[in-house]
This record gives sequence, structure tokens and C-alpha cells, in this order.
Amino acid sequence: MTAEESRAPHGAQPNLKDGLRQAIIDAARRAYVEESYAGLTMRKIAARVGCTAGALYGYFSSRQELLGHVWENELEKVHVYTLGAVDQAKDNVGKLRQVFLAWVRYFMGHKEEFRIMFAWGIANGAADKVKPRSPLDGPDHSYHHFRALLRAVLVDAPRAPDDLDLAMQSLLTAAFGVVAMAHSPSQFPSYDPEEIAALSIDSILIGWGVKVPGRY
Amino acid sequence: MTAEESRAPHGAQPNLKDGLRQAIIDAARRAYVEESYAGLTMRKIAARVGCTAGALYGYFSSRQELLGHVWENELEKVHVYTLGAVDQAKDNVGKLRQVFLAWVRYFMGHKEEFRIMFAWGIANGAADKVKPRSPLDGPDHSYHHFRALLRAVLVDAPRAPDDLDLAMQSLLTAAFGVVAMAHSPSQFPSYDPEEIAALSIDSILIGWGVKVPGRY
Repeated sequence: MTAEESRAPHGAQPNLKDGLRQAIIDAARRAYVEESYAGLTMRKIAARVGCTAGALYGYFSSRQELLGHVWENELEKVHVYTLGAVDQAKDNVGKLRQVFLAWVRYFMGHKEEFRIMFAWGIANGAADKVKPRSPLDGPDHSYHHFRALLRAVLVDAPRAPDDLDLAMQSLLTAAFGVVAMAHSPSQFPSYDPEEIAALSIDSILIGWGVKVPGRY
Repeated sequence: MTAEESRAPHGAQPNLKDGLRQAIIDAARRAYVEESYAGLTMRKIAARVGCTAGALYGYFSSRQELLGHVWENELEKVHVYTLGAVDQAKDNVGKLRQVFLAWVRYFMGHKEEFRIMFAWGIANGAADKVKPRSPLDGPDHSYHHFRALLRAVLVDAPRAPDDLDLAMQSLLTAAFGVVAMAHSPSQFPSYDPEEIAALSIDSILIGWGVKVPGRY
């Protein structure tokens, strides 16, 4: 939880305010799961909480900001899950592989969470109309945490891309594609998603000159 | 167009029957675009065509089969577009790169087509209820066409996966992930999608020991 999140708005009793705040975030999440994009209006979310839409604005300045917090809650869960896999690996290459493989495992087992985080905009054009506030700022964020691990792995890699973020997003989208395709109506992939992701991630790393134990 | 598609059902006049058949496929496509999954019932599609749901079954044995043809029409378009890019490349590695890069370019410029082919199942759980009939059978299909190109490229690659389909699907999902993430509400990718896809595809190929001109 960030400092901003733990700070109660308007100087009210922190516990009560925080409880209501989280209740609003949870209601927005349920609204999306049950009603898809149609449920994501401040009025409908307020009705679920049992207050007015105006009251919601005491907590969130916009629907975008509220959606950003729904997203951030989900991201926190997958981050903690991924840490569990990363921390058990013995070396940096093993840890880095787990960043992406744990991510695939998590979202293969959590389709609802995948839809909440990634699919609503794909499916109905909502991404053109409503974008969540960016939850990716700040050095503590999941992306930056694991980006530091990638930097450590690539420091000696002879063919690593000069741009660390480009490298990170190459690996990220390779893993993302396996899950997104597995959750689509396509027949693909026809292999275990984790097996495909492992091949893609390992091959990219080997392509950059990283030694991946057990592969090459 | 396959032999099955060009054959008129029930021995009627081919041209009229074929025209109606295509009108039904087009109506199903519009129904999805305008009403999302809710529009994909035989009754609603029939209403768009101006006939009864029963009449539709003279053309398609199930909603799944009809959806499969919607999908097949879309696949044909991206296949032809991809061929246009592949055929201008001079060598097999260049052609193979274009399979995936053209695919990314096509779907970055055709978000509606991307939604039709891949997103409706992701977004609303429809994939669990209704799956299109597989349009991927037969040696003439796009996948098999480009798989033969991959086989030619990998024949001398020292670290190529033993399983050609696993290799194909690794490349496919890596490209897919860039487009799917770019069309999601995520901030990622923050680079030109084709640049990320090129890095991923080239790096995977280099990881397998393929020489990619201009990269390494």
C-alpha cells in the first residue's frame, strides 16, 4: 500500500474512510465482472455501495482514477504471487525466468483477474474512452522491481538490447501473448502455456547472449 | 474458398444460395461488432438477414459453425495481407520475419478485426460457451503455409526446438502479445509495437541459431 493509499481523505477518521474507500474499489471490481463495461459508471458503482455518485467523488476524482485503483489491487496480487516464485529461485537468470513464468501461471489460473486487468478494453473499445490512471509510477512498482533484475541479468549479455525497457517489454509481451491467446477462442496455443512461454523467454534470453541453465 | 464453401446447400441455384450464405456471415459479423456477444444468437442474426432462425440452419448447422465462417473470412484477409509482405522479402529469414511483423501491422491498424478474431472470448467468457468451428484444418491453411516457411528456416538452425509447432506457436504468441497488450488499457507497450515484435521475433530466432541479417 502506498502512502497515498493509506492516507485518509479530508482528515476524517482513517479507518472508517479507508473502509469505505476499499468498499468502493471492490464495488467497481464487481460491477465490471458482473456487467462488463456497461457496469463501469460512477452512478452504478455508487448504487452498489449504497451512496450517491457525488459521494464517490470525495474518494476518487474520476472514474479513471477509481479504475486505476481496481487495477492496482489486482497488480498487487500478481506481484506478490510472482515474488513467491522468484524468491525460491537460486540465481538471477532463474529468478528472471520466474517473473514471466509465474505471471503466466497466475493468469492461466485466474481468468477473471486477467479480464479485469487486460481484457475489458480489448473487447469493447472502452480503452478508447476510459483509461485507468497509471498505477505504474514510482520505483517500488512491480515493473521497476523486476526491471532491476533484468538489468542485473543483462549486464554481461553480449547481444542485449541497449534499451532496457524495450528488452523488458519484449519479454513481457511474449509472456502476455501466451495467456491472451489461451484465453481467446483461438485453438492456439495447443501446448501447455507455460511450456510455450518458457521456450519464448529462454530463446529471447539466449538470443541476447544470456546463459540459461538447462536450455543452452 | 474451400470446396465446402463453394458448394451450394440442398442443390439450389449456387449463386443465390451463396449470396444468402455470405449475407448471413456478414450479418453475424455486424451483430458481434454492434452488440458484442449479446448479438451472437441465431434469432438476432436471422432478424438482421430478414429470415427466421430456422432458415439459418439450412446454411449452418450451429452457431459455432457460423462463427467459424466469420472467423475464416477474417483470417483470409490477414493471410492475404501477410502474403503481400512475405512475397516482397528476398530470402526465407526475411519472409519469415514478415509473417509475424505483417500480422502485427495488420492488427494494429485493424482493431475491429482483432476484436472479432480474438477478443470476444477473452472479454465476456463467451469462449467457454461458444467456440467457433475450427477453420485451421487442412494443409492450405495460413498456419500450415507459414509453418512450411519456418521449417525451411530452421532446417540448419543448431538450437531450433525439435517440435516445429511449438516453435511456430512461440513466435505466434510473441507477436500476438504485442498487439493484444497494445489494444488493452495497459500503458504497455510504450514502444512502437512493430519494433517490440521485431526484437522478440529476431531474438527468438537468434536464440535458435538462425542468422538474422541486420541484427546479428
